[in-house]
Amino acid sequence: MAIGGAEDKTSDLEILKRVFDLAPEANAEVAVIATASSIPDEVLPDYQAAFERLGASRVHTLDIQDRQQAADDATLRLINQSGVIFFTGGDQLRLTNVIGGSAVLNAIRERLMAGAVVAGTSAGAAAMPGTMIYDGAAADALRKGAVNMTFGLGFVDGLVIDSHFLERGRFSRLMQIGATNPEHLGVGLGEDAGVIVHPNRVLEAIGPGHVIIIDSRDLASSNIADLSMGEPIAIENMILHAMVSGHGFDIEARRYLVADALDALLEESR
Amino acid sequence: MAIGGAEDKTSDLEILKRVFDLAPEANAEVAVIATASSIPDEVLPDYQAAFERLGASRVHTLDIQDRQQAADDATLRLINQSGVIFFTGGDQLRLTNVIGGSAVLNAIRERLMAGAVVAGTSAGAAAMPGTMIYDGAAADALRKGAVNMTFGLGFVDGLVIDSHFLERGRFSRLMQIGATNPEHLGVGLGEDAGVIVHPNRVLEAIGPGHVIIIDSRDLASSNIADLSMGEPIAIENMILHAMVSGHGFDIEARRYLVADALDALLEESR
Repeated sequence: MAIGGAEDKTSDLEILKRVFDLAPEANAEVAVIATASSIPDEVLPDYQAAFERLGASRVHTLDIQDRQQAADDATLRLINQSGVIFFTGGDQLRLTNVIGGSAVLNAIRERLMAGAVVAGTSAGAAAMPGTMIYDGAAADALRKGAVNMTFGLGFVDGLVIDSHFLERGRFSRLMQIGATNPEHLGVGLGEDAGVIVHPNRVLEAIGPGHVIIIDSRDLASSNIADLSMGEPIAIENMILHAMVSGHGFDIEARRYLVADALDALLEESR
Repeated sequence: MAIGGAEDKTSDLEILKRVFDLAPEANAEVAVIATASSIPDEVLPDYQAAFERLGASRVHTLDIQDRQQAADDATLRLINQSGVIFFTGGDQLRLTNVIGGSAVLNAIRERLMAGAVVAGTSAGAAAMPGTMIYDGAAADALRKGAVNMTFGLGFVDGLVIDSHFLERGRFSRLMQIGATNPEHLGVGLGEDAGVIVHPNRVLEAIGPGHVIIIDSRDLASSNIADLSMGEPIAIENMILHAMVSGHGFDIEARRYLVADALDALLEESR
């Protein structure tokens, strides 16, 4: 599950409650990984308090500041016994740089396959796909080279996730990425909004904010391949959706799902 | 012609040159109207210098700060002899409040019908259609009631114009407006970008920046009519384009025009 940042941690906990409720039965242990954050000592207690309020039996606050810690046996044991693994916000490049290719990352992938919930907010959300954005000002985007991408953590394929999306006006970033390769779906998460990626590759929007979808599969033309770096990118025909809580999107069929259609698809796959 | 704000006034003058070059032959007089601006004394000399550099025979700097001035005979005479009428930026609500329904506005409409160029930047661009946005933060948009609209100056129909579009991430404002009535095309102007509305209702993008088109005609569903004020708006299926200089858009056909297609259509209509 990916969250757009600034989710409520002290009031209704609407999004964090969904994260916690998705955990496999009889496993109420939560691991919170603050690697992306430059202020883990401030961030970790907030999540500890929130997940404890939601009924977590234990919350493991994992700082993991370097690659040695990302190979630590004690940390691996805590990951392996947790039903929820949660990545905080911060800098997604720091997150992939420290845990990319590590024993901890391998353990998390195995937990995901085994049915645990893997969730992240802001940088932790952006890093979830196989490829991620790590820099690029929205105001400068739509110019060749203005959006910087690299490998992500590889928890989900076929899409790219951007966060703080409406608050920072990042539509142009996902448009630019769609023009580079229309195969991949752009998912823009507003603050206090999240998206669950269900096993049948159906997205479900949650929280009070918006989830924006930019679908480039029907891109009709673009000049991007012919431009020099810095020149303005032309784009003909992308599809734009705004999902609210309870609505969804079928990644493979590229189909928007209003509440009834989403419920039917999720029911079917149970 | 509508310009997204912050157009170059001192270097290449790429956009202002196009404004000036579109003036009817043998009329090199320019009227600049600074009604929207709170600092007309700072803004008017810059435009005077720019248009004089481009070869204007005279530049009439028209302050017009109240409705009495908007009915002034001397001002009307200057409007009536100008081949270019240019509106500065500022606050579009001040612009329509002061000149709406005035003799000056009627004179400008007649000049437009007679072949003069009417152009505006930023607030002056936003005010050109029959209906305009005058307020609404992009970060709060996509919630019912968050974008405020009222009557514009009525120089062009069938579209709504937003300015500083990429710089302030205003995609959500045009999405919200498209959901309220999909008939009207959303035109988002980046800074140092403009759009010429040709007589055959074809748009032509000019300048180094982007012109974003949000076309809601194929809107498939939205919850907007069922919401209470402040609730988040869902949108299924809008079309998104990014035009660069030399590309265009056919408003009636809702068709993106790459450079060759635009040239052919403009040639045809000459």
